[in-house]
Amino acid sequence: MDESPIHHRSGSMPYLVAASQILGVAVLAVTGSWLSQYRGGFSWDGPEQFNVHPICMVLGMVFLCGDALLVYRVFRHETKKATKILHGALHLMALIISVVGIVAVFQFHKKNAIPDMYSLHSWLGITTFTLYILQWICSFMMFFVPGIAYTYKSQFKPLHVFLGLSLLVSTIATCLLGLTEKLLFTIPDEYSKLPGEGVLCNSLGLLLVAFGLVIGYILTRDEWRRPPLPEEQALSIDFKTLTEGGSPTEP
Amino acid sequence: MDESPIHHRSGSMPYLVAASQILGVAVLAVTGSWLSQYRGGFSWDGPEQFNVHPICMVLGMVFLCGDALLVYRVFRHETKKATKILHGALHLMALIISVVGIVAVFQFHKKNAIPDMYSLHSWLGITTFTLYILQWICSFMMFFVPGIAYTYKSQFKPLHVFLGLSLLVSTIATCLLGLTEKLLFTIPDEYSKLPGEGVLCNSLGLLLVAFGLVIGYILTRDEWRRPPLPEEQALSIDFKTLTEGGSPTEP
Repeated sequence: MDESPIHHRSGSMPYLVAASQILGVAVLAVTGSWLSQYRGGFSWDGPEQFNVHPICMVLGMVFLCGDALLVYRVFRHETKKATKILHGALHLMALIISVVGIVAVFQFHKKNAIPDMYSLHSWLGITTFTLYILQWICSFMMFFVPGIAYTYKSQFKPLHVFLGLSLLVSTIATCLLGLTEKLLFTIPDEYSKLPGEGVLCNSLGLLLVAFGLVIGYILTRDEWRRPPLPEEQALSIDFKTLTEGGSPTEP
Repeated sequence: MDESPIHHRSGSMPYLVAASQILGVAVLAVTGSWLSQYRGGFSWDGPEQFNVHPICMVLGMVFLCGDALLVYRVFRHETKKATKILHGALHLMALIISVVGIVAVFQFHKKNAIPDMYSLHSWLGITTFTLYILQWICSFMMFFVPGIAYTYKSQFKPLHVFLGLSLLVSTIATCLLGLTEKLLFTIPDEYSKLPGEGVLCNSLGLLLVAFGLVIGYILTRDEWRRPPLPEEQALSIDFKTLTEGGSPTEP
């Protein structure tokens, strides 16, 4: 039996990480099959342009953002630099894919003279995405641009972490609103008889919630936080002392 | 300037608690005025019976549950027993009011031959409420019935805390779905022109999200966790040692 501290402290985390990935892939698969089977599939120039919106938002803002949040837990014994680059790369992919998804729906609305930005889905979605862009800008300046004082970084970090998880939750809520809207727009009379599409979309909603719950549980466990490597601990003490004006040799 | 440790450690918490209460009262006021101004007000025997559902769910499952979660932060220097009773009492009120709200909508549907339980709102709502009941039963047995071993309590507590906040978030998502459904059922053609009711309900959605965010932020700050009082700390060490079969005098 492996009783090393690293394995012991991980506890059930590997199983929960595996569960999150199974749920994430299931969410993507169900979204894809819903749009292919019931909504005519995908195209950029055509009535199926709308379908690019849900698949991109689920892939970018849910799956990739969720995985970006997990990076500091899954690779908690790798160097901070490598983990930070992976976290940033996943968020960059998420950002690009989400922008494609947002452009798709606005273009589709414009071509078909459908009004924009009146529903709660759009209000919550645009608020979430604006905050995501702000989070991107602030975090890039704080954690990638060199020369920012340790004090500012350590003050910003808890807010960054809280906002990161909140934006994932808010994105999932926006997806649920989008699903409800789409069903009430496209099958308003049949929905109450629970046809295949209704069951599939309701199940997709619950899968999205389950994905968020598992990610949220992993991220809020104190014992699974990334412990600083010994060399980082020494460095951060030095930086902290230097930026606060003291001497590194002080206790 | 008051530099006592208690005040120093509270930091911005009192302001955030005040903000949460302002948001909570605003959510209730907006829900009440929406249902009164646009949906004919309240009655138990009549077409307005439906309106009892949203107001009860927002009062019980959002406002009272949210405040029940805050109790351990706001009254963190009171005895654990008093805080626990207040936490339980708020949740008991929440439970009773929510049951009234759920009975109202099922009775209304039955009287008007409206199908039940087909929408994502109803699926997520019933899942959330079932988990809330399970949380109630498990927590009552763990924390109110005497004689449960300290080990079990301390193992269950992190799950109880995580599930508590998750159920609040899930309830808020259910409310947003309910708002979207109601608008698309009652003003399907006008909604896209953003009439007063549309603006009011969308704003109510964002207020609900803001309430959840502030509560979530307060609850996830490590530094605002309830510190055990000195006498509780001594007691819990004794209990732990006793329930684990050791001697209280052991180190």
